[in-house]
Amino acid sequence: MARRFFINESDINNDYVTITGSEHLHLSKVLRCKIGDNITVGTIDGLVLDCCIKEINKNKTIAQIQQKILMAKPNYNITLFQAIIKGERMEWAVEKCTELGVTNIVPFTSSFTTVKASDNKQAKLNRLAIEACKQCGRVFPPVIDNVVSFNQCLNQLKSFSQIFLAYENENSSAKDVIKGLNINENIALIVGSEGGFSSEEVEKFKNLGAKCLSLGKNILRAETSAVALSSVIMYELNLWKKDF
Amino acid sequence: MARRFFINESDINNDYVTITGSEHLHLSKVLRCKIGDNITVGTIDGLVLDCCIKEINKNKTIAQIQQKILMAKPNYNITLFQAIIKGERMEWAVEKCTELGVTNIVPFTSSFTTVKASDNKQAKLNRLAIEACKQCGRVFPPVIDNVVSFNQCLNQLKSFSQIFLAYENENSSAKDVIKGLNINENIALIVGSEGGFSSEEVEKFKNLGAKCLSLGKNILRAETSAVALSSVIMYELNLWKKDF
Repeated sequence: MARRFFINESDINNDYVTITGSEHLHLSKVLRCKIGDNITVGTIDGLVLDCCIKEINKNKTIAQIQQKILMAKPNYNITLFQAIIKGERMEWAVEKCTELGVTNIVPFTSSFTTVKASDNKQAKLNRLAIEACKQCGRVFPPVIDNVVSFNQCLNQLKSFSQIFLAYENENSSAKDVIKGLNINENIALIVGSEGGFSSEEVEKFKNLGAKCLSLGKNILRAETSAVALSSVIMYELNLWKKDF
Repeated sequence: MARRFFINESDINNDYVTITGSEHLHLSKVLRCKIGDNITVGTIDGLVLDCCIKEINKNKTIAQIQQKILMAKPNYNITLFQAIIKGERMEWAVEKCTELGVTNIVPFTSSFTTVKASDNKQAKLNRLAIEACKQCGRVFPPVIDNVVSFNQCLNQLKSFSQIFLAYENENSSAKDVIKGLNINENIALIVGSEGGFSSEEVEKFKNLGAKCLSLGKNILRAETSAVALSSVIMYELNLWKKDF
């Protein structure tokens, strides 16, 4: 069973886990799991439990733990600072960057962002990220912050040792900019909204040490930039292999 | 005006172009262009015309050509062989791979594809690709084939000098597999459907010289794999810079 189910630590009782709510429904009604099936269950803190289903009731599933592993956190740190983009495209970016392995996502407002920050969005994006983790087998979901202002974003960037800004007016070859990137760095990726960044904003990023790089001749959409840049960074860090 | 409008060669008359249909509607009603505005108009064969709007009528826009450039075709060749995926996700893959610069897209059926091939789809995907070109400033749209069978796909692959297969069971580091890739190669990227490929299918690809590579620890969705792999290949060919 490739799909992972998420539970809370409080759902674990000695050798048994209790699965409830939407996870239980998905397991019982959609996947139609049966007593005796093996499933993998995990917490967002990296506890991974191989279990065997013992009971499926109307409201819950009970499974017996057969193996328990505490996974190590990723040995890298990649934070995507994403200027908020409209609706579904922001969700696509979060889903795909979660699959790719980005560790943190910080949405922020800038001169040209048009979406109003709202609290509902963070909850929705977190749910999306957890769904993506279940689908792709990722153990630790990304940490997704609530929307921050441009100045708060600049402040957070101060603690990063490598900052890459996807910028269409940049002539440098991305390979020259990214080469030699070390996995021990605290890496930030900055991607603009549909409207991009003003030249003043780009200057402010550069003043913090941000390296601008082009993603090619064409002007990529914001969510394409996020996924393309995340892919290339993971690849360049040599994380595109089965076990690392 | 960043947005490019597509026309046919037959819409060009001496120093004037006539823009009709949905392009005219978008120009006049959505973007609300005016007489005197400068726009860029192009054909799918690479003719790029900088124009100035002279007349906006109910059904058409007439613009005067100020500069005419015949663009050179891309100096690289990247074909995405994409096992067909359901609905919106296939469209997303085509849109984003168009933005990234993939030159050809060949949808194909395999053991685990569930979508029925239909003629309507090719027309829709081509329209999507052209929209993406207008948005991102790409001159030559990708050539998108009608759906082919697995065996037809194998046959087409014989003319490619470098074939990369995104395969989750592969242990090799992608960097080791892709390094030294030359821009003069005829490059094929193979991405599976939601269900992936059978081991027999993978063997057949390998027999044609396909190199398997992992896209990381997590199991990426099909459309994420297409975009991630295309990004990395464009990057590795040093095409991630403004002018090439």
